[in-house]
Amino acid sequence: MAPDPFSRVGIVGLGLMGGSLARSLKALPDPPMIRGLTLLDEERDGAMREGVIDEGPIDPRNFFPGLDLVVYGTPLRATLELLDHHRPLLDPSTVITDLASLKAPVLERARALGLEGRYVGSHPMAGSEASGFMASRQGLYEGRRIWLVAEKAALALVGRIKGLWKSVGGECVVTDPWDHDRQMAWVSHLPQVASTALARVLARAGFARDQLGPGGMDMTRLAASNPSMWGDLLRHAPDTLGEALAKTGAAIETMRKLIEEGRIDEVEELMRDTGAWSEGNPWR
Amino acid sequence: MAPDPFSRVGIVGLGLMGGSLARSLKALPDPPMIRGLTLLDEERDGAMREGVIDEGPIDPRNFFPGLDLVVYGTPLRATLELLDHHRPLLDPSTVITDLASLKAPVLERARALGLEGRYVGSHPMAGSEASGFMASRQGLYEGRRIWLVAEKAALALVGRIKGLWKSVGGECVVTDPWDHDRQMAWVSHLPQVASTALARVLARAGFARDQLGPGGMDMTRLAASNPSMWGDLLRHAPDTLGEALAKTGAAIETMRKLIEEGRIDEVEELMRDTGAWSEGNPWR
Repeated sequence: MAPDPFSRVGIVGLGLMGGSLARSLKALPDPPMIRGLTLLDEERDGAMREGVIDEGPIDPRNFFPGLDLVVYGTPLRATLELLDHHRPLLDPSTVITDLASLKAPVLERARALGLEGRYVGSHPMAGSEASGFMASRQGLYEGRRIWLVAEKAALALVGRIKGLWKSVGGECVVTDPWDHDRQMAWVSHLPQVASTALARVLARAGFARDQLGPGGMDMTRLAASNPSMWGDLLRHAPDTLGEALAKTGAAIETMRKLIEEGRIDEVEELMRDTGAWSEGNPWR
Repeated sequence: MAPDPFSRVGIVGLGLMGGSLARSLKALPDPPMIRGLTLLDEERDGAMREGVIDEGPIDPRNFFPGLDLVVYGTPLRATLELLDHHRPLLDPSTVITDLASLKAPVLERARALGLEGRYVGSHPMAGSEASGFMASRQGLYEGRRIWLVAEKAALALVGRIKGLWKSVGGECVVTDPWDHDRQMAWVSHLPQVASTALARVLARAGFARDQLGPGGMDMTRLAASNPSMWGDLLRHAPDTLGEALAKTGAAIETMRKLIEEGRIDEVEELMRDTGAWSEGNPWR
């Protein structure tokens, strides 16, 4: 039997992630009622006008009553602060999730607030360098991996959150929040910092972005990501990020030396090894 | 008056670049006759079968007679070697171009062979991590920057080569070959090496490519580029590539230290600066 779907959903933050979830849910054959909460008038007005949310109360006290599910689509730091502020306003049966890309800090906060029994954290691998409601779109989660984390006390709710994501095309995998965050340091934070570093070097050397080829464009796209969202994540980044960055700096230095010493056969060998890794995956 | 178009074109190498040029020319309302020369039977057979070339002689002596234009769509080292081999076979009035992404080495070779009066080098900023005839497509050059280089003796021919590229959607800019190659070290070779270094670190840390989010995918796509083509380019890379790589390693190290010391406000500031550079360009 399919898990009981959520019929009254509240989404806090209607930016790229929250706005896209609202759009995707509203496109379902039997969409839930959606209530949005945002500090930005243009997000609320846009979402109301486009029918992406049904209600957009300004006062948080009018947001929480009667919700089955609250989704925090806010940046990590805001999510942690809002959980504190909203704790007294939550209905006792409301399930809670969030979309932040680090999971240990939110689960720790949920436990500190006595919410661990109804908190299932989500991390959709579906970001983009764009942000804001204007960048949101139906289908953002289609085919995307969604990491889910929960304490034992909330395991019974995981099926319902899986159902939510499945309905908008996501593919859920349950994981351990600390393992998850260490993995993100490598697969998400490291590429972000590398893109910023590369873009910085090119900008300082006097190049404009339209002087790059398509490959260089790919490599500097992430550099346009939201700085304060990333600041939040980097404040909570696990130590392993330092290791990942040090190894990347060392790998660039290794290649610099090989090239400078004319040891190009070794560079080709290294590219063949690494290229096999890249090509091994069909999702290119 | 539009420059006299080439009506009998020979293309050496029918991979991604040469094959795409052939396809794009054949899609014109009044396409030229195209003769292809390749060492790979499957390229020749595929191009003949799809009508992308009209003739595919196996013996180079049957390739050159009567051509208006020869285009070398081969990797840099092969282009240099083939120019030597083909010199005696060239008709005296045939114009020559190539598609390699470094231009000083080919112009120097053309001069050494006494071909500078009919050589206009091309560098389309339109590569991809894919390669081979199977990856070629009509439209590859649509909207792409094409760098052109020529010695004074060949300036009168530049207009005809511009016309060729314009007919397939390219946007030509004439430049100095040495300036061009120094620029490529920054905007093309540096992103390639950085992508390979990042992919290498992720592969060695035990991650599969499908564990990356869309941003990490972007950052590791170039790592799948053709190693021997890149080996050729790196053998001829200008010294400035070493400087570019050293600066990128240093930028990563700077960010690593800021993050490790918790100076995240400075990281955000740096991301804001760099992000403005990335966002300043509409071609995202």
